[in-house]
Amino acid sequence: MTDLILTTFDWVPEAPRGYVRDIRVRWALEEAGLPYRVNSVPFRDRGAEHFSHQPFGQVPWLTDGDLSIFESGAILLHLGELSDKLMPTKSRDRSNVKEWLFAAIASVEAASQPWSFFKFSGGTEETQMRKFFDAFLESRLKHMETVLTGREWLVGTFSVADILMADVLRLVDRFDGLAACPACHDYVARATARPSFVKAHADQMAHFSAAD
Amino acid sequence: MTDLILTTFDWVPEAPRGYVRDIRVRWALEEAGLPYRVNSVPFRDRGAEHFSHQPFGQVPWLTDGDLSIFESGAILLHLGELSDKLMPTKSRDRSNVKEWLFAAIASVEAASQPWSFFKFSGGTEETQMRKFFDAFLESRLKHMETVLTGREWLVGTFSVADILMADVLRLVDRFDGLAACPACHDYVARATARPSFVKAHADQMAHFSAAD
Repeated sequence: MTDLILTTFDWVPEAPRGYVRDIRVRWALEEAGLPYRVNSVPFRDRGAEHFSHQPFGQVPWLTDGDLSIFESGAILLHLGELSDKLMPTKSRDRSNVKEWLFAAIASVEAASQPWSFFKFSGGTEETQMRKFFDAFLESRLKHMETVLTGREWLVGTFSVADILMADVLRLVDRFDGLAACPACHDYVARATARPSFVKAHADQMAHFSAAD
Repeated sequence: MTDLILTTFDWVPEAPRGYVRDIRVRWALEEAGLPYRVNSVPFRDRGAEHFSHQPFGQVPWLTDGDLSIFESGAILLHLGELSDKLMPTKSRDRSNVKEWLFAAIASVEAASQPWSFFKFSGGTEETQMRKFFDAFLESRLKHMETVLTGREWLVGTFSVADILMADVLRLVDRFDGLAACPACHDYVARATARPSFVKAHADQMAHFSAAD
């Protein structure tokens, strides 16, 4: 087994703490029981070395021996292939996990992220576009509510797809956006009650506050 | 080889024609030379059978024998694993293709899609959020410009990552959003000049106009 190294920022402002995407990777590594180290890069001064690993100047990235992987979705897919605690073994189930990894980003986060920007901005402008983004998220959540009703996890047992989907929905829940979607709300509660999430969250909070 | 069946809508309004995401799948299938059939579902009346394949009521989905896969990114990943014309053979390159599949959606389309909604709406409101989304896209394109400068394709040879990224950037180009990014613009031109894209585009246009 090569050395897994997760790289994240050395510090971030208070608002995103607990929600920086390295949590998805920490969570998966904890679930799998894979040993790893955490490395930091400056938040304020992002250099050429940073961009050589993450071309958008974001975090996280993961190195696994010679491999360097950015994008939390791609990292989760990679970790899923390292551990059957993160990805089921049947080929049909594995295919379903992969489609849900993409769906969490392309079908749910694509709607929740613009919505959350409005929430983060604290603005109260009631524009046409704001109404559009509210309706866009509402429509995607309505379908997720159907999917999650009566289902514990997206594909049979807990997998990386749940880490990604629950993390996406968790940000909606933060702004009370799941009030009309009890199955989504319960799913987030169930996922974030897992000891591996609790540890990953505490570790991220401690990491960023250590640099204050 | 099992039968590959791509499912898309029977009809869509004029504005999205040529940009419906089944084009990503058609394009990949044409590049790989994999035989496939195209199946239609009603655009106006989406039934239980539709939602059983695509829980958000969108298109496309692909069936490959017993497997049914939704999300264009997941379908491209699946097709990449079927053909070395769509995915390189070295494991490091394959890992890079996967991260770029996710990056096209999570790092570029996440910024271009809200921006394109403003463009599609034809609205002229100069709100704070509109400025925010303009700046968000500009920042992601600036990084893509660096990535694509002096590079023909994202990972050595042409792959499914280029199909996804070029299709995402093509929609930005449609609204003249690549004027300040010549490398991105040239990349889209290079990708869409490929005979497989030309055929996929013509086939999509013919498919939707046949139902008018």
